[in-house]
Amino acid sequence: MNDLLEVDGHRLWQSLADMARIGATPRGGVRRLALTDDDRRARDLFAQWCRDAGMTVRVDAIGNLFARRDGADAQAAPVLIGSHLDTQPEGGRFDGVYGVLAALEVVRALNDARIATDKPLEIVSWTNEEGARFAPAMLGSAVFTGALPLDDALARQDADGIALGAALDACGYRGTHAPGGAVDAYFEAHIEQGPVLEANGTTIGIVTGGQAIRWLDVRVTGVAAHAGTTPMAYRQDAYFACAQIALELERIVAGYAPRALATIGQIGIRHASRNTIAGDVTFTVDLRHHDDACVDAIEQALREACARVAAARDVQVSLDTCWRSPATPFDAACVDLVARAAHAFGYASERIVSGAGHDAIVLARRVPTAMVFIPCVGGLSHNEAEDALPDDVTRGANVLLNAVLARAGVATHAAAAALDA
Amino acid sequence: MNDLLEVDGHRLWQSLADMARIGATPRGGVRRLALTDDDRRARDLFAQWCRDAGMTVRVDAIGNLFARRDGADAQAAPVLIGSHLDTQPEGGRFDGVYGVLAALEVVRALNDARIATDKPLEIVSWTNEEGARFAPAMLGSAVFTGALPLDDALARQDADGIALGAALDACGYRGTHAPGGAVDAYFEAHIEQGPVLEANGTTIGIVTGGQAIRWLDVRVTGVAAHAGTTPMAYRQDAYFACAQIALELERIVAGYAPRALATIGQIGIRHASRNTIAGDVTFTVDLRHHDDACVDAIEQALREACARVAAARDVQVSLDTCWRSPATPFDAACVDLVARAAHAFGYASERIVSGAGHDAIVLARRVPTAMVFIPCVGGLSHNEAEDALPDDVTRGANVLLNAVLARAGVATHAAAAALDA
Repeated sequence: MNDLLEVDGHRLWQSLADMARIGATPRGGVRRLALTDDDRRARDLFAQWCRDAGMTVRVDAIGNLFARRDGADAQAAPVLIGSHLDTQPEGGRFDGVYGVLAALEVVRALNDARIATDKPLEIVSWTNEEGARFAPAMLGSAVFTGALPLDDALARQDADGIALGAALDACGYRGTHAPGGAVDAYFEAHIEQGPVLEANGTTIGIVTGGQAIRWLDVRVTGVAAHAGTTPMAYRQDAYFACAQIALELERIVAGYAPRALATIGQIGIRHASRNTIAGDVTFTVDLRHHDDACVDAIEQALREACARVAAARDVQVSLDTCWRSPATPFDAACVDLVARAAHAFGYASERIVSGAGHDAIVLARRVPTAMVFIPCVGGLSHNEAEDALPDDVTRGANVLLNAVLARAGVATHAAAAALDA
Repeated sequence: MNDLLEVDGHRLWQSLADMARIGATPRGGVRRLALTDDDRRARDLFAQWCRDAGMTVRVDAIGNLFARRDGADAQAAPVLIGSHLDTQPEGGRFDGVYGVLAALEVVRALNDARIATDKPLEIVSWTNEEGARFAPAMLGSAVFTGALPLDDALARQDADGIALGAALDACGYRGTHAPGGAVDAYFEAHIEQGPVLEANGTTIGIVTGGQAIRWLDVRVTGVAAHAGTTPMAYRQDAYFACAQIALELERIVAGYAPRALATIGQIGIRHASRNTIAGDVTFTVDLRHHDDACVDAIEQALREACARVAAARDVQVSLDTCWRSPATPFDAACVDLVARAAHAFGYASERIVSGAGHDAIVLARRVPTAMVFIPCVGGLSHNEAEDALPDDVTRGANVLLNAVLARAGVATHAAAAALDA
């Protein structure tokens, strides 16, 4: 990695701006839900750019879009690079699309430098990463890796009852290729979607994996009663029990600082009324940590705290673990290539665990994988005001380019000449 | 009060059962919303019973229904006795209707005993006490006392946009009498709607007044952010702040035990999502105490606690006091009549402050007032399972009868004969 190749930052920035016009919102964001007309237009534009760059485009049966640049070794599995073009309903101009267009810029830069790689390169744009139109999120990559059966995915319906298969047909992106196939390695560039890199003044996040995620549903059952006629000593108030459980959770998680995260994002009181004591309250808990064992320990401590609160307040508390996603370490060799590229450029970098879900985390369970993070302004994402600095956008793509090139290998002159012929 | 007169408990129980058929629900409760067809049928039946008891029925312009039994003193203001016939959507067989039919039983018992009173007696059934169809609750009595202007009340709309005036016309109970007029005293019998009498083994609650009620709206504003990418130290989580405020409230109120009550009956997270940190949470607080000064002190302590939580957690907390109802002491002389009647019968009794709102509390601000409480099973009310024991129903009516008789005075034989003529 002595000869550092650089992308054309202006071209990448311009491509991001051009793509952001598709589904642009009045407040500067993007609304481009999976397999809508805007998603089709984004896919069409991206596919055209790939063809213009000399690549061959194909689509698989779940709509994942691949653009291939051949390598000198025709037998080698491709190095896959990409992310997604769909957005949240009130999404931004960088989440997903940055990874796709940075991958395109990698190929454009290699073309400009007339560098052939040993292994083939394939850019991928995964279908329905956001999960905003069809559940679950990261659907296309899950089908690709076999984690989600194709038929199951095709039958998923959006809020209007439209099946994903029908949506694929409607936008012309139901391909004929069976999802899956050999992959040498997968690289994905993405905005961090959190505040850490910006706060630390770091340009490049060397992502070492995805953290463990666990979702719990908690239900507290007390007795609904009249707010004016029931003395405090007679109450079995489900809401105050919830409040105590919340603070117990916060205390437990503080014991695993700074890596443990706990969020209560939804809470509802059944038959809520201002002058009725809460008798039945449900709330959600989102737990995350780099280490599965820590999530286990936090969940266990929470269960014990709930039992204590239930006994002390004469209410019932039930906890239902409704989703577990284990911690997913990335491939050490691929992560090292990202680190070496960042160091070679002299960019301020740090190792970071991805807080959010990404296609890369799905891929990592089957394929050697790494990610490159760049800062986003104010840590803001899934928001129309989502932003990134042009210099960071360029630097992230530079790291991606050189890590990918190191993995794919530069073809010999002879092999490159043969490829050209 | 040497000669204790007694009601016919069986007749009263049968009248309660007959009335409970109107709007009866499959689970044994009653759904008889104000000014609906079922309310009309209940009013019709009640008015007929009153006429059968020799009373004169009239209706005022807000639909309050009065039945008069003349007294020997034609100039005297009447002793008013009553409650309401409307119910909650899933209401019970005693809330309100017990006070109306106990008043009717008072008159029937006086008729049976051929006792004329000095002052006239009037039974009243107030319009829309529950507030379940039209806001506010205790609307008819508020118009009667001048606390709510008639035109304002007539314009109130239900959830379907039907004005109260139109509902009065539709059920044939818009009367011609102007609401209001001189009242000597007001007595109301009611189930306690709480667990205290039952828990203490008390038959009669001698109600000394209504407690102070204060309603607050609290809003906590933090920053919504990604549950997976935002370290705990960077969060401005509005929900955990709410939980802490709730426990602070509970702690503050415990300092005013056992008379202070605090309820958080409604809470909502704006744009709630399982994996998004709560950025904007609102909740309600219902505070009650016998003493206005204690409610003031609790509110002030809560405001100080909110300021501390806001500072510690870097969130904004706003408190809006949206309703204040001051403590309302009942008339000492009227309360004493209730106490003396209970003692004369040898019923186990205790002084109690009403936790709920009642027409009597509205009346008490203008007219000498007292209430008689009887226990309800399990303290349950505003519930289809609401229940009361036949003996308690009878005893409460006995106390009401003798308190009213003491207030109205027994007419001399000569005066009674003149009244009969």
